[in-house]
Amino acid sequence: MNIASLTAVTEIVSAIVSPSGEWLARSHAHLDVLTKPPGSLGLLEDIAAQMVSIRQEEFTEPLHKAVYVFAADHGITAERVSAYPSEVTHQMVLNFLAQGAAVNVLAKLHQVTMNVVDVGVNADFGGATGLLDRKVRRGTRNMLREAAMSDEEMAQALRVGLELAAEAKTRGYCLLALGEMGIGNTTAASAITAALTKNAVELVTGKGTGLDADALAHKRQVLEAVIMKHFGNPETTSKPDPLDVLRRVGGLEIAAMTGLVLGAARNRIAVVVDGFISTAAAAIAFAIEPRVSGYLFAGHQSAEPGHGVLLEYVGLKPILSLNMRLGEGTGAVLAMSIIESAMALYNEMATFASAGVSEARG
Amino acid sequence: MNIASLTAVTEIVSAIVSPSGEWLARSHAHLDVLTKPPGSLGLLEDIAAQMVSIRQEEFTEPLHKAVYVFAADHGITAERVSAYPSEVTHQMVLNFLAQGAAVNVLAKLHQVTMNVVDVGVNADFGGATGLLDRKVRRGTRNMLREAAMSDEEMAQALRVGLELAAEAKTRGYCLLALGEMGIGNTTAASAITAALTKNAVELVTGKGTGLDADALAHKRQVLEAVIMKHFGNPETTSKPDPLDVLRRVGGLEIAAMTGLVLGAARNRIAVVVDGFISTAAAAIAFAIEPRVSGYLFAGHQSAEPGHGVLLEYVGLKPILSLNMRLGEGTGAVLAMSIIESAMALYNEMATFASAGVSEARG
Repeated sequence: MNIASLTAVTEIVSAIVSPSGEWLARSHAHLDVLTKPPGSLGLLEDIAAQMVSIRQEEFTEPLHKAVYVFAADHGITAERVSAYPSEVTHQMVLNFLAQGAAVNVLAKLHQVTMNVVDVGVNADFGGATGLLDRKVRRGTRNMLREAAMSDEEMAQALRVGLELAAEAKTRGYCLLALGEMGIGNTTAASAITAALTKNAVELVTGKGTGLDADALAHKRQVLEAVIMKHFGNPETTSKPDPLDVLRRVGGLEIAAMTGLVLGAARNRIAVVVDGFISTAAAAIAFAIEPRVSGYLFAGHQSAEPGHGVLLEYVGLKPILSLNMRLGEGTGAVLAMSIIESAMALYNEMATFASAGVSEARG
Repeated sequence: MNIASLTAVTEIVSAIVSPSGEWLARSHAHLDVLTKPPGSLGLLEDIAAQMVSIRQEEFTEPLHKAVYVFAADHGITAERVSAYPSEVTHQMVLNFLAQGAAVNVLAKLHQVTMNVVDVGVNADFGGATGLLDRKVRRGTRNMLREAAMSDEEMAQALRVGLELAAEAKTRGYCLLALGEMGIGNTTAASAITAALTKNAVELVTGKGTGLDADALAHKRQVLEAVIMKHFGNPETTSKPDPLDVLRRVGGLEIAAMTGLVLGAARNRIAVVVDGFISTAAAAIAFAIEPRVSGYLFAGHQSAEPGHGVLLEYVGLKPILSLNMRLGEGTGAVLAMSIIESAMALYNEMATFASAGVSEARG
């Protein structure tokens, strides 16, 4: 791999530290004096404590939240692995810009700033208003025949995410959601999952946006061939290099999300992962630098079978389980409202002492 | 049982009809033309369709939401079944009125009108501002020795709920959350669950607000004795009368919540059930009239073991699973934000036709 093109990435990665253990303990001590039985707010307590340990300070201002929807096309769609034609990636980006998609509705309702990033759509938007034009290439190459990206293309896509994370820091965002749109990208996510976790293709491949049984069997065959071509027999190969996995079977939007995760961890910003595809990006970041997991929340458990495998790999527990399988960042944005609730409880509840409420009998 | 005192209840019950099957089908047809793969919003689609089938109309105005926190004391606390002294019920009501409790914080954040109802607290509030004084009695009787309520006391508590539901209709609320506060009330909920579902006490009894192993064993012994006293051996007794169960081993706040569920169903208002205790109230309502289940949402899956048993009994699927075990309506209010999200998606997303997005290949 061409190391020079990855200098920006390696510099960021080397500067990542874990969230503060001291602030984690301090926040749990605060939670225990609030007027409720200790631990009775369950996962909400863990969420609040993690947010405080990430920020390394008490903070009471409202959470400034942003979602980044990265769009790109996939060469593998030539193999008919998706229920939708690939031009839907382009059409859905226009739908995002017109505020008509699911993620737009949720972002508006929950006061999350929406960012739509073209990192590799196979269409010309002609400078459309509201679109962040960071196009690296009009779609990846067909990974059944060759690597999805060159070293330089991957590095460029990673830098898109790194730069957006740095910009988010400047703008005062403390909670980011990952979103994506790319027809064919559950196939890339399945390939990443199989390569990283060494699970069988069958276990980590699902119906994506809605394949029937025959089409799912075909998608699995294509994926078997992709894995064999790039990585050989998983039982005989050594631990994979995550950037090599990303370059060979990833996507431009996936690389950008990996960059955003790394950049956010570097800047001590929390990131809410969405479904299968964004978790594949987070898993690559985690394989590069395990400390990133302290900055991550899993927004939800999606219906795709590979998602649970990846959540376990990264060590994340999903906030929501609503059987969603849409992507776009919808599950992550929805989970932001739970994180916001957790922080409000942390900051606004009375203590046993202030409210004159008796504590539990010893 | 003195039937005359229950006339108001039986009249309401006989007027309950199921939500509209026609509107349910119509709302699913609408969901299928929105710009997303069919079904990909998972449970959110079911939630939106249920709301429309309850209202029997399309509606785009914001959801007017209210939470009712019913507070009452329990005679069974004389048997030391709780980790907290019973005066905490009184203290927590004061905390609700001072906006310091968890449910206050969540209700404020999610724009839910908060109502605190004293239906049986063992203390005098002297006309405290903001408190709805509907006190029936200063706590129930000790159900280890006698029935928790008389016929008339139970009927009065049920009417509290019925009347609040009618008032909610007048005020234009379309979504209500159940909440409760009552030291000792997980014991009542466990007794109701054991009696209604004929499960063993051991399976439906948990640590409540935080009992240790010895105290939990004691709570189970007390409950075994309560069940034996009032219902005899569950294997040999016939199907229990739900109002008889409520009167013998329920609570005043539980009876009021049962009334609220029945009244809401009568008035075609959706109700979000919270944790174990409020679900016990909903289970009594369901046993009286199974049609109420169409009006119910389960806000969350609580950590109490009996809760899952009751959700299955009523046929409800929890929206959230955050390992919460606080009560007060906290899980229900949190779930309201998910229901609100589902309705926003239903009303605001573009259609395939309006956005010019291609549908899936046939």
